[in-house]
Amino acid sequence: MNSYCVATYRCYDAQADFHKKAQSIAVGLTVGSWTELPAAKQKEMEQHLGLVLSVDVYEPGAAGEQADEGRYADIRIAYPDINFSADIPALLVTVFGKLSMDGKIKLTDLHFSPSFLSRFSGPKFGISGVRDLLGVHDRPLLMSIFKSVIGHDLAELGEQFYGQAAGGVDLIKDDEILFENPLTPIEKRVQVCMEAARKAQETTGQKLLYAVNITGPASRLADQAKKAIDAGANALLFNVLAYGFDTLRELSADPDINVPIAAHPALAGALYPSPHYGISASVLLGKLMRLAGADLVLFPSPYGSVVMPKEENLAIQHALATERLAEDYLYVPSGGSDGPSVSLRTSFPVPSAGIHPGLVPWIIRDFGSEVVVNAGGGIHGHPMGTAAGGQAFRQAIDAVRQGVPLADYAGSHPELKAAIDRWGVKE
Amino acid sequence: MNSYCVATYRCYDAQADFHKKAQSIAVGLTVGSWTELPAAKQKEMEQHLGLVLSVDVYEPGAAGEQADEGRYADIRIAYPDINFSADIPALLVTVFGKLSMDGKIKLTDLHFSPSFLSRFSGPKFGISGVRDLLGVHDRPLLMSIFKSVIGHDLAELGEQFYGQAAGGVDLIKDDEILFENPLTPIEKRVQVCMEAARKAQETTGQKLLYAVNITGPASRLADQAKKAIDAGANALLFNVLAYGFDTLRELSADPDINVPIAAHPALAGALYPSPHYGISASVLLGKLMRLAGADLVLFPSPYGSVVMPKEENLAIQHALATERLAEDYLYVPSGGSDGPSVSLRTSFPVPSAGIHPGLVPWIIRDFGSEVVVNAGGGIHGHPMGTAAGGQAFRQAIDAVRQGVPLADYAGSHPELKAAIDRWGVKE
Repeated sequence: MNSYCVATYRCYDAQADFHKKAQSIAVGLTVGSWTELPAAKQKEMEQHLGLVLSVDVYEPGAAGEQADEGRYADIRIAYPDINFSADIPALLVTVFGKLSMDGKIKLTDLHFSPSFLSRFSGPKFGISGVRDLLGVHDRPLLMSIFKSVIGHDLAELGEQFYGQAAGGVDLIKDDEILFENPLTPIEKRVQVCMEAARKAQETTGQKLLYAVNITGPASRLADQAKKAIDAGANALLFNVLAYGFDTLRELSADPDINVPIAAHPALAGALYPSPHYGISASVLLGKLMRLAGADLVLFPSPYGSVVMPKEENLAIQHALATERLAEDYLYVPSGGSDGPSVSLRTSFPVPSAGIHPGLVPWIIRDFGSEVVVNAGGGIHGHPMGTAAGGQAFRQAIDAVRQGVPLADYAGSHPELKAAIDRWGVKE
Repeated sequence: MNSYCVATYRCYDAQADFHKKAQSIAVGLTVGSWTELPAAKQKEMEQHLGLVLSVDVYEPGAAGEQADEGRYADIRIAYPDINFSADIPALLVTVFGKLSMDGKIKLTDLHFSPSFLSRFSGPKFGISGVRDLLGVHDRPLLMSIFKSVIGHDLAELGEQFYGQAAGGVDLIKDDEILFENPLTPIEKRVQVCMEAARKAQETTGQKLLYAVNITGPASRLADQAKKAIDAGANALLFNVLAYGFDTLRELSADPDINVPIAAHPALAGALYPSPHYGISASVLLGKLMRLAGADLVLFPSPYGSVVMPKEENLAIQHALATERLAEDYLYVPSGGSDGPSVSLRTSFPVPSAGIHPGLVPWIIRDFGSEVVVNAGGGIHGHPMGTAAGGQAFRQAIDAVRQGVPLADYAGSHPELKAAIDRWGVKE
């Protein structure tokens, strides 16, 4: 029995025969031609032939209405594993390399054969591993972002770091636009910030992960990561889409890179938002990030200034955190054997941008407890200062866990009260 | 005087104050905040501050018309070099990392400071280097693509290769979906195909480059390339966008990878076609490919089945082949010094898909002589066979060079005549 990976496309066309189009994709992106092959050759080539699994055509409006832009089909094609090596570049080039340039077509989902998936280790830590490192198992985590980094020196970054750490955040991440630079070189930055973390821990009594941004030439990213780890970094931030998924996979699989990796979605907006082109957010920032080994994945929240529709947000969250690989990740042909058993650790979803304490009940309602609440302005902009900003978030999280409305909890928690006075509570 | 790289965006919004938005981009993606900084700090931070160079607003229609989807602005922002390391990932993450996710906005152009550009070697061979290797200086080159590769063994690939080579093509490229595989492993494939090339050369008397596809784990691509070269490969094919531009740059800059690299546009259609999102084709397949060192760049032709508008095609061609770096690539602030003098070899444009001999006059008219005519079906589908397919193209090229209409030239050239009978001559 052959094993297959399955791509789902949404394809727009006013007149196309979508069944014919699906057939031409299945043949064209695999064996090249089929009907003109002699029967003996067909038999030999059958194991390489793509299969049309389904074509669901959506015909908009009634007859007589304008039915051009809106007409589309959802097409599922199964590609034999034997055609490509078991890596993300080969899979993407196979299913969407040339096809991405062939009219209005978007890659909306991917399912993997058990044998393909079994070649990926996934996150080294994942949700439970990150929780173990922090010793926090009973609440959403809190992450904060530096207020501003460019042009600031080590002392200023250390001070910003301390303010955030003192407020009780669990993770602090570099800005994704902070590259290797003479003012705050990575090793010194790690030393200064981890020292600030130790100092804050004396007050808060809690652990903290600092995700330092790994940048520079592609072949030296692993060395850069190890340099940061040797200097004391206990997490990494990585702009995955600027380097490709396989580079993330290699960093994650490297036994010497023994800290969690947070994937930043920089450049993702060039790929996911169009209905007609690109790759859906749940594939790009969900399934592929998890396969490639991201322990945490940032993506635009549905609440803030940088907006992504909630439906797509929840699809990312589901892809990162589902335990049901058989249903959500795998394709097994009917009558086929299950192949190797596979497992992947879950990745922490980190909905980001525009987050303030008054949104915490919504975040937990939408994403559940296995979420990282990530704030920048909502911490640094707190009227009582950065530390109070972190405390207000922790109080909001506690309030939700205790089932107390934020407004009530704020009565005995001045930091939360000041935050609510400033940003309100989302109704 | 600071030096800057400049990003041009097209930004759609029904109501936005585009000048205010431009300002918020220039500040938000550099120093983070500005107006609230004390004057002394502003002075210190000024070298890090992004600058709005221009905002051109397009207001569609007259008053009363529906003016939503169509309202846009072209915005140019200068980003200080001091903020990012001199590599493409850092530049892209800076100018379009977070911003790509901020509504309807497309990155339409990039200009570089002389000092940024001086850090890139560009193509190792370029147009003139590829011509030197082939010893062909007086006509467009001819490239062909295997008919089908998946499921075919070494003997079949060798036979296909020989047929193409015997027709007088200058370059033959692997299919981009041919990955490392047990049936035709890269070293054996190179040996078999280069042997076929030598055999054909006995008849044609001409040299030939075989661009073999470099695939697999990101950190082992350079080894894979060297293995292919050791086996006799004299060119490489690379799916750049599956691995990122910096990986291409490293392959190209590697002194042991001393053969031309052809960049395949696989996955580019996920990024360039939308008017509202992504990165324009001339940046993606033009400027960045050249900067990163592609000697040849394939892109969808304006003639074939996989269509790109001619205007965008010519913008790619211009970006690849222009010698006028000062005008087309560089940004020098008025009153600024020119910085280091920079040069980049040109890259060969390879418009691809749907090419047959009847299109050759149009290709040369549109792209000039510094072009690679690239055909698959237009060679393999020739009624007299593959070798005749290549000959028909060479005859079409000769006809155009001699100023003879194809139909006339076909009178004394049966291969060209058969091609025209089959595919016609584009009027």
